[in-house]
Amino acid sequence: MRIPLDRGKDRTRREPLSRQIQLHVEGLISRRLLAPGVKLPATRELARELGVNRTTVALAYDELVAGGWARAHVGQGTFVADQVPAGTEAPRPATPRFDWTGFLSKSAQVIAADARRRLAYSQVPRPVPGVISFAGGMPDASLFPTDAFRRVLNRVIRDEGRELLQYYPARGYPPLREYLAGYLLRFGLEVRPEEILIVNGSQQGFDLVARTLLDSGDFVAIEQPSYPRAMRVFRAYGAQLLPVPMVAGGLHVDYLARLLERQSPKLVYCQPSAHNPTGLSMSAAARQRLVDLAVRHRLPIVEDGFDGTLFYGERPPAPLKSLDVSGLVIYIGTFSKILFPGLRLGWIVAPPELIERLEMAKDLADIHTSPILQAAVFHFCRQRLLDRHQVRVLRESGRRRNALLAALARRMPPGVSWTESQGGFSLLVTLPEGMDSLALLEQAVRRGVAFTSGNAFFVDGGGEHTLRLTFAAIPVGQIDEGIKRLAETIREAQRRPERARVIHPAVPLV
Amino acid sequence: MRIPLDRGKDRTRREPLSRQIQLHVEGLISRRLLAPGVKLPATRELARELGVNRTTVALAYDELVAGGWARAHVGQGTFVADQVPAGTEAPRPATPRFDWTGFLSKSAQVIAADARRRLAYSQVPRPVPGVISFAGGMPDASLFPTDAFRRVLNRVIRDEGRELLQYYPARGYPPLREYLAGYLLRFGLEVRPEEILIVNGSQQGFDLVARTLLDSGDFVAIEQPSYPRAMRVFRAYGAQLLPVPMVAGGLHVDYLARLLERQSPKLVYCQPSAHNPTGLSMSAAARQRLVDLAVRHRLPIVEDGFDGTLFYGERPPAPLKSLDVSGLVIYIGTFSKILFPGLRLGWIVAPPELIERLEMAKDLADIHTSPILQAAVFHFCRQRLLDRHQVRVLRESGRRRNALLAALARRMPPGVSWTESQGGFSLLVTLPEGMDSLALLEQAVRRGVAFTSGNAFFVDGGGEHTLRLTFAAIPVGQIDEGIKRLAETIREAQRRPERARVIHPAVPLV
Repeated sequence: MRIPLDRGKDRTRREPLSRQIQLHVEGLISRRLLAPGVKLPATRELARELGVNRTTVALAYDELVAGGWARAHVGQGTFVADQVPAGTEAPRPATPRFDWTGFLSKSAQVIAADARRRLAYSQVPRPVPGVISFAGGMPDASLFPTDAFRRVLNRVIRDEGRELLQYYPARGYPPLREYLAGYLLRFGLEVRPEEILIVNGSQQGFDLVARTLLDSGDFVAIEQPSYPRAMRVFRAYGAQLLPVPMVAGGLHVDYLARLLERQSPKLVYCQPSAHNPTGLSMSAAARQRLVDLAVRHRLPIVEDGFDGTLFYGERPPAPLKSLDVSGLVIYIGTFSKILFPGLRLGWIVAPPELIERLEMAKDLADIHTSPILQAAVFHFCRQRLLDRHQVRVLRESGRRRNALLAALARRMPPGVSWTESQGGFSLLVTLPEGMDSLALLEQAVRRGVAFTSGNAFFVDGGGEHTLRLTFAAIPVGQIDEGIKRLAETIREAQRRPERARVIHPAVPLV
Repeated sequence: MRIPLDRGKDRTRREPLSRQIQLHVEGLISRRLLAPGVKLPATRELARELGVNRTTVALAYDELVAGGWARAHVGQGTFVADQVPAGTEAPRPATPRFDWTGFLSKSAQVIAADARRRLAYSQVPRPVPGVISFAGGMPDASLFPTDAFRRVLNRVIRDEGRELLQYYPARGYPPLREYLAGYLLRFGLEVRPEEILIVNGSQQGFDLVARTLLDSGDFVAIEQPSYPRAMRVFRAYGAQLLPVPMVAGGLHVDYLARLLERQSPKLVYCQPSAHNPTGLSMSAAARQRLVDLAVRHRLPIVEDGFDGTLFYGERPPAPLKSLDVSGLVIYIGTFSKILFPGLRLGWIVAPPELIERLEMAKDLADIHTSPILQAAVFHFCRQRLLDRHQVRVLRESGRRRNALLAALARRMPPGVSWTESQGGFSLLVTLPEGMDSLALLEQAVRRGVAFTSGNAFFVDGGGEHTLRLTFAAIPVGQIDEGIKRLAETIREAQRRPERARVIHPAVPLV
């Protein structure tokens, strides 16, 4: 701790050193720079550091304890008190604060505008006791194989710790990339390890692809509805989004074909399987037509792979990337939907010459992804622990999905429709004509049920007549009750339509 | 594994199913999509997946083994052979490959140009047996407290695993941010936890600051020489660098003052302590003048904190951030220089309104930094393991630094000068007039010693008469011998100057 001390020779004109130390520490505590419970430096240490006598520091500490600022534990030291004396909050010096507003980049401004829009449109209520929440997209942490992972990680550090805690090449841990090449074969995707770049979750995949391909003013074609964070990251790089509606479970290829006659997007982003929010899957024929169209127009495709193992009923067709003989599909995958989102581990599959560019961008973004986590996931997978876990998650989320579909069929009034989720963790409900999901949300929370308003998934802030229900983390026993409450809310809104209609603020799409 | 099977009824017109399976797997192996040693799916599994008889798959596997493609281990399964049969590399289909060149963003082009320039200018030779290398900036992995960290991590997952493996708020693990507030007090930096954002190493700190503040065409003032990755990231966001020379151990404040009369950089980047590559430290007076100048010109400062504990001799003055009453200094810190670079853990300190913007950018970049690593580092620090480790690293690198300075003084011919490193892991050597460090490097490696050519640290590709020596990871017993070899190389070049002079290719600064 650095404490500026007045050591003037004339002792009548300055505070004693112990008093100066005491006041300085009081100031740090009252300004919350030293948090409650924090251990103060040992008197001997601080005395040495400040070049004063140890008793000087001890005296200051005694005064801090006497004043209620700190508590002493014999043999342990002196700690900041849990309760700071009242009325002692020192006013901060009233200096003119630097105003950052004018210094923000265009990107920062777009990001902030989107954040404001998101707050206005898709505020997800905080968990309230008793509320059954179909909002949020987190997997169920109670299914996590935490202990198995702990053991694997422990062994990885013991066996390879020294080299895995050092700087590491940006492309990633080679055995994980080799494992992924084999893993992706299961979905019909034939790629070599050198076509794979390890990243921090699919989000960093979007980010690196965007910074490598997009300039301000470029257009990006995107399924509508779509995944909000992907939309936001493309916009943050200055791209304008061109929404393409969905038809029969996937991107409307003919619509895109017509759009390409008028405009030249830099890329098209889509989620052909386990689409978020609808849970739908694109047919094999439509996939082929999309790839053919992209080849004809030299239009790169960014394919969000979500998790190929999360499907209900029929297995989805192979990814677009598997149909890609010319190398214009970029496939982004992640374990976050099924394993541990908190690890932030994902990958990009692309032709080697593009992977090399993405790797350069990764190197500048954060040098590399933590290799101990990569190695731990590799060993976890190689011991077939992932396979076992996937079976369990799929069975459990399948039960929840079936319960949700059954409850919707049983409870919903006429005029309400929904997508039959075939994969992933969610489905999209369409409300009766004229009903607004944001206004409905307020009523719903009062009745003890929550969801995500549909606006978040639409480029132009449309979708107010839709809402997303996720079933990943909701106990199966609560699903019917939750949908009963939602159906009641909708019926009530049908009786009092004025309550479920709002005038939307015009939020410009910067 | 997906294998497209021709199941035509007319068996005379198609290959038997087992033969189709065999050929498909052979194709995967010869194209390296199935790596040597990989386990093939169990016959029962694959049979179920393909909808064929199990004996059909077993027959295919037998043929693979007979042909040398695979080996069978009774009770364990069938594995891809380590040696693939010769002359069987299947030619890839000759489809026209998509050419990504025209699709790259301006940023990707700048990044690639910088990468090419880096390759041309500062190629660090691969470790050759017998070469004593002063190149590279990695800390010494043999000092890593790997085992202590393993135990802490193990406990963190056991106690808090479930919530730390889930999605997490972008700002970071609160106890770590609180600990950092206390830790930074040691260096005279008074910040509150809400002014701290956890990031993936200081590199992500630079990246988030750049994307939040820089637009294409902005200027960034930067010390010269400087840290190459920081320069590159600013340039990747379209900024142009304005080099400011160093004087008396730090950025030349008067030069910057004159520059600000003509130009308006968006920010200034500097490393006031433990400067890389010189190891020098800015005086307290110069720090104050720099902050005053910045306030007067409303010029944000990005302060690279490196590691405040890594100093030799006198303690460096408090960071610029500690002098910053108006809130225009952004301080970027990291544990990577002293603890485990592979964890990728760093932090940004900035006023709350800017931290909020940086947090939004972080959320779009990769959602958050792995919370189990944050929690592990927190507990590691709280148990004072970091403090103990720092003492050890400092003692060890101090010995190496002293040995290096002594060797330079003893061995170097007249005309060679160097910086007296006061902190960090490196120093900068200036060669005699007309001698080129890149040409010298080739000769040096032949004599068994390596370094980093100085060009990498200069904005305009200047600095060819300088070179960087790092002493972090070099055994103290090799230092004198290494410098003896370097001195011999320089003497030899003085005798034959034509060998140490190169015509530099004109690499445009895009």
